[in-house]
Amino acid sequence: MEGVLLGTQFQNLSFKAILTPQSLLVLDFRGFGLERWLVLELAPQLASQSHSLPFEFTALEAILQHKVNTLHAQLNDVEPVLLDTLESLVDPKILSVDRSKLHILLQNSKSLSELETDIKVFKDTLLKILDEEEIIEELCLTKWTDPRVFEESSLGIDHAEEMELLLENYYMQAEELANKTRELKGLIDDSESVVFINLDSHRNVMMRLNLQLAMGSFSLSLFGLIGVAFGMNLESSFEEDPRVFWLVTGFMFLGSGLIWRRLLSFLGRHLMPSVPPLIPQVWKRNMKASDIRSGIR
Amino acid sequence: MEGVLLGTQFQNLSFKAILTPQSLLVLDFRGFGLERWLVLELAPQLASQSHSLPFEFTALEAILQHKVNTLHAQLNDVEPVLLDTLESLVDPKILSVDRSKLHILLQNSKSLSELETDIKVFKDTLLKILDEEEIIEELCLTKWTDPRVFEESSLGIDHAEEMELLLENYYMQAEELANKTRELKGLIDDSESVVFINLDSHRNVMMRLNLQLAMGSFSLSLFGLIGVAFGMNLESSFEEDPRVFWLVTGFMFLGSGLIWRRLLSFLGRHLMPSVPPLIPQVWKRNMKASDIRSGIR
Amino acid sequence: MEGVLLGTQFQNLSFKAILTPQSLLVLDFRGFGLERWLVLELAPQLASQSHSLPFEFTALEAILQHKVNTLHAQLNDVEPVLLDTLESLVDPKILSVDRSKLHILLQNSKSLSELETDIKVFKDTLLKILDEEEIIEELCLTKWTDPRVFEESSLGIDHAEEMELLLENYYMQAEELANKTRELKGLIDDSESVVFINLDSHRNVMMRLNLQLAMGSFSLSLFGLIGVAFGMNLESSFEEDPRVFWLVTGFMFLGSGLIWRRLLSFLGRHLMPSVPPLIPQVWKRNMKASDIRSGIR
Amino acid sequence: MEGVLLGTQFQNLSFKAILTPQSLLVLDFRGFGLERWLVLELAPQLASQSHSLPFEFTALEAILQHKVNTLHAQLNDVEPVLLDTLESLVDPKILSVDRSKLHILLQNSKSLSELETDIKVFKDTLLKILDEEEIIEELCLTKWTDPRVFEESSLGIDHAEEMELLLENYYMQAEELANKTRELKGLIDDSESVVFINLDSHRNVMMRLNLQLAMGSFSLSLFGLIGVAFGMNLESSFEEDPRVFWLVTGFMFLGSGLIWRRLLSFLGRHLMPSVPPLIPQVWKRNMKASDIRSGIR
Amino acid sequence: MEGVLLGTQFQNLSFKAILTPQSLLVLDFRGFGLERWLVLELAPQLASQSHSLPFEFTALEAILQHKVNTLHAQLNDVEPVLLDTLESLVDPKILSVDRSKLHILLQNSKSLSELETDIKVFKDTLLKILDEEEIIEELCLTKWTDPRVFEESSLGIDHAEEMELLLENYYMQAEELANKTRELKGLIDDSESVVFINLDSHRNVMMRLNLQLAMGSFSLSLFGLIGVAFGMNLESSFEEDPRVFWLVTGFMFLGSGLIWRRLLSFLGRHLMPSVPPLIPQVWKRNMKASDIRSGIR
Repeated sequence: MEGVLLGTQFQNLSFKAILTPQSLLVLDFRGFGLERWLVLELAPQLASQSHSLPFEFTALEAILQHKVNTLHAQLNDVEPVLLDTLESLVDPKILSVDRSKLHILLQNSKSLSELETDIKVFKDTLLKILDEEEIIEELCLTKWTDPRVFEESSLGIDHAEEMELLLENYYMQAEELANKTRELKGLIDDSESVVFINLDSHRNVMMRLNLQLAMGSFSLSLFGLIGVAFGMNLESSFEEDPRVFWLVTGFMFLGSGLIWRRLLSFLGRHLMPSVPPLIPQVWKRNMKASDIRSGIR
Repeated sequence: MEGVLLGTQFQNLSFKAILTPQSLLVLDFRGFGLERWLVLELAPQLASQSHSLPFEFTALEAILQHKVNTLHAQLNDVEPVLLDTLESLVDPKILSVDRSKLHILLQNSKSLSELETDIKVFKDTLLKILDEEEIIEELCLTKWTDPRVFEESSLGIDHAEEMELLLENYYMQAEELANKTRELKGLIDDSESVVFINLDSHRNVMMRLNLQLAMGSFSLSLFGLIGVAFGMNLESSFEEDPRVFWLVTGFMFLGSGLIWRRLLSFLGRHLMPSVPPLIPQVWKRNMKASDIRSGIR
Repeated sequence: MEGVLLGTQFQNLSFKAILTPQSLLVLDFRGFGLERWLVLELAPQLASQSHSLPFEFTALEAILQHKVNTLHAQLNDVEPVLLDTLESLVDPKILSVDRSKLHILLQNSKSLSELETDIKVFKDTLLKILDEEEIIEELCLTKWTDPRVFEESSLGIDHAEEMELLLENYYMQAEELANKTRELKGLIDDSESVVFINLDSHRNVMMRLNLQLAMGSFSLSLFGLIGVAFGMNLESSFEEDPRVFWLVTGFMFLGSGLIWRRLLSFLGRHLMPSVPPLIPQVWKRNMKASDIRSGIR
Repeated sequence: MEGVLLGTQFQNLSFKAILTPQSLLVLDFRGFGLERWLVLELAPQLASQSHSLPFEFTALEAILQHKVNTLHAQLNDVEPVLLDTLESLVDPKILSVDRSKLHILLQNSKSLSELETDIKVFKDTLLKILDEEEIIEELCLTKWTDPRVFEESSLGIDHAEEMELLLENYYMQAEELANKTRELKGLIDDSESVVFINLDSHRNVMMRLNLQLAMGSFSLSLFGLIGVAFGMNLESSFEEDPRVFWLVTGFMFLGSGLIWRRLLSFLGRHLMPSVPPLIPQVWKRNMKASDIRSGIR
Repeated sequence: MEGVLLGTQFQNLSFKAILTPQSLLVLDFRGFGLERWLVLELAPQLASQSHSLPFEFTALEAILQHKVNTLHAQLNDVEPVLLDTLESLVDPKILSVDRSKLHILLQNSKSLSELETDIKVFKDTLLKILDEEEIIEELCLTKWTDPRVFEESSLGIDHAEEMELLLENYYMQAEELANKTRELKGLIDDSESVVFINLDSHRNVMMRLNLQLAMGSFSLSLFGLIGVAFGMNLESSFEEDPRVFWLVTGFMFLGSGLIWRRLLSFLGRHLMPSVPPLIPQVWKRNMKASDIRSGIR
């Protein structure tokens, strides 16, 4: 009786198995939930041999399906948490980032990397089998032992091709998962850029407010110095004139107000330089240029 | 009657179809606007069988064209919004970034990633068919059933080659879309760098202004201390001399002015260090070196 | 007597060796600990010829195992230090980064790069051998000299295949190490982003506090100016009214308090702009869109 | 009369052409300057049939040369502007970046991306032809129609090989252009990093100056409070002693000077922590380690 | 007499050469030091025909060795300067980066990019020859003209294989150089990240000091206002009580000290938020999770 040892080909399955045309010996399984899967799901699936395909197809399909399901479940664990975390991180209202969110982001980013590796290994395994015709033929156990099965194949294609289609199907599912993880990774990168721009923007806004206040304080200091001067116990010959008090006080307040206003308008002009109008817009001009260029092609 | 199930080969079509030499059975379509396309565009296209090519070519071309059109329409949705958003983000006049723009950027960047995946999957599908001669021959249904068609082929090349040219044509269109999305991604990255440099530049300018004001405030505090000293209710023996008031007041204002000026010129010298002239320009020297080097080759 | 010079194929072994069906001549070894390995581990391993495989398999396996073990040991040296360092760097409580940690990070990142190169070279070597059938056959020395060995091969596969499985096994182990190093590299990048966000967040928080204090100082300066004005040795006609002192003092303190409060609430409104509710959430909307989109497929 | 339609193979030529052994029909050209090239350069080039190669070689070489020249001219347009802009951006003397330079950088970076795509498409086209022997043979029109030409081939290699050398030559030129653009892209990235480090450095320098001034202001405020205390209209019993004025004034100025000096030296110590000498230099130690390691190999 | 034109295959040699079984014609050399190499090194190397290999092997080896030596020398020029520059840039003691160092870094980074391209082109050239059996056979000139040489080949392998080993050897040397440059590039990136973290860290430390000083200044301003109030020329009815002076002065100094202390402790609490203990450590938890996960595999 011929048999194939799965686990040499599928190195990141969580168990080893010997597959024969009549039975599937699960050898070396470890892990939580695997027993449940073996007993509750795999067994009935294999028992319901209602379809015309030989046993090893059913068994292999069940195993590959389980692997893809596991990967899918892991992605589904990570994705919503990640999206929620990113959503709250890129929130433009926040001034500083909630650091516990960053921890969650880092954890999920790490899980995503590990999942990516897992998917890559699974894909590489399937690809290696698909690249070598002999391994596929080896996996088609029934064709060797029972030639009669070949004729009753419903689709008119032989078992090796059918096995190839089966494996390709799971390869494509793994590819889709890989695409999804790559998109998530890209989303993390983009969101981090947005977080940085957000934080930098907030900082600039605060710095401008700070600068405006510093200008106000400077104006008050400058004109306060006049008050301090008149506060000295020195004879200024104005002591007795009652109007001087109001004059100097008014000058102090009005002067500092005016100076502040000038400083503020200077800041406004300084920060918003009138870019010379001869600088064209980046895209618009290039759009035209590329239109022309694509026209030349 | 032979038939080919599209949708195993073209896995990111939005429907499944069975293609026979006489008819196209659209099986499993879902989506908005697809009905419209099926009824209003596909049907007349297939009906107008004016050209010498067999039916399956017309049908396949219609389907591929529809897929490419969809991808193109998605790109055309994303591109102008993205360019507008980037244009407004890299505007050098802005001090802080409009955060709603960032949201739009993030959304479109995400859409672009998804579009990139879509195009990649489409390209991989076409490439896989192009790599395997048998699949191409399978797609040429008419050649098998009706050998007479072969002779009347107008271009003197057989159907398999014609099918290959057809697929290659769409592969090249998809490649062009992929190039376009890659360029857009690069543009987003470059723009983000420019946004960061812009924000950093603004910050530095504001910080220098802040520093200059801090120097002014410091000067005023320093010489204001003299005024405070003379304001103490202590006997300084200058109380009666009327010139001392003007002397000290003048000293306070002039002194703080002078100190501020010195501090500002110190700042100017400090921030613009006279880089020793022996540091050559990076490119100019290297340009010469690379000229020599490329000359040696 | 036939022999193969290892070290042309395995160019990053730490020694050269001539492998014959009966003996292993280790030629050109340098390094610490290699003597220990040669004498204490390799010799007994080769001596215990209990299994049915020819000598060159045992020898080659011992050498490859040693190489993989060395790479594994290097990874195990780097990994915990790296994880500890990253763990302490991403700690959200720290305001500024411990610079000696950065040195350790840089050193380990460099070691990781070197290890990555080592693994890559080892993988490339194995891949090159696996790609060329003749080299594998060359490595199977016994098959040539002793055809009798072939029959007693326990597994029913010939030596070249067995050699291929042996090499593939070590290739897969090297691949796993490569995946691990790549994950670590990604983790370093992600952690650095988190460190930057952390530092930026801290800065924003400090800047807001600074701004709030600057607002307080400004308010005090503004109303302090009133006090300074009344401190001038000028006649204000209020000198004799005892209630005016309390009135002005109270006005100074209350006024600056009120102004500060207004400024703070202005800051609060300014930094948390009421984003117009028509900006949708990035992911939620896109999630729906992608649901629809994937449904269309 | 046999003919080949260029433009199916060379899809990013700016025109379509039918090449026969005797003539070149330029079909579908669009663009500025193309007429000039067609009339002034291409025609004489094709007319001067002085060399022994068949016509289609001359024509194809002229077309490929024109394409490479166009790409080269585009690169030569972008490169000097880009290098000048980067040169002025990385200038260490500047405190804030000239924003119009950023616009120019962004435009040229975009042009470079588009050029990169163009070169890539051209390279892919050539590679596809080089990979398929039949297409090369198809391009050798003369060999089919005129076998006598084969014998008089000067170099002793047949036309297909000669065509391959021709195409390979242009592939290598395109490769060189691709390398050049990649280096430029890397240079932009490196320069942006340097710009960021420059801006950050400037900011740190300004922040230290700001901090030093803040320390000075704090010292003055602290000791100014003494002066304010003595300025109160309260009886301190020192009023009549003339030495007390000088004592307190001296204490105020000296005290604030001393405190400032202490704060500055504290800042100096705080910012330049005596890194424990047991932290080795990153590279030196690793250099030794890698010496050892490379010795072991 | 047969001959091979080197320089079509080796397109980034700094000269062209015609290699015949008896002589090496160096044709088209340009560059400094090449004459020295040709006369002083190449000539004696070729003259000392002591070994059994045919002349073209010696010549080709000399040329390839020279190319590899040149690349190695270029790397050795760049590497120590680069490591020294990076070493001084990542120095945690420095507050702002020496801008002349950045220039040196940029120059060397550019040189490294150019060297990388050079190595890549050299590798591609060798790879192309190794991939095509005919080119290797073409290079073995002696085998064609002198079959007697074949027998006396010392190693029992034919010339084509020997030539392949020769080329592979230099390919591996080029590969090692490429690995080295890639590691250096990675080191530059990592160092830049560390420089940024260093600068950001310094900034945060300075900002905290600044904030602490701002708190001190605010406290002094707040309680200085009391002094200013009592300094007003208004009647407060405390003027005559000598204890009030000391009371108010003490209150001012103690009060501002107390308020400062409270603000500082508030800052301490604000910046070091007691992260809820339910946030696990990123790695530790994940380590366990991955242990479990790898156990499941």
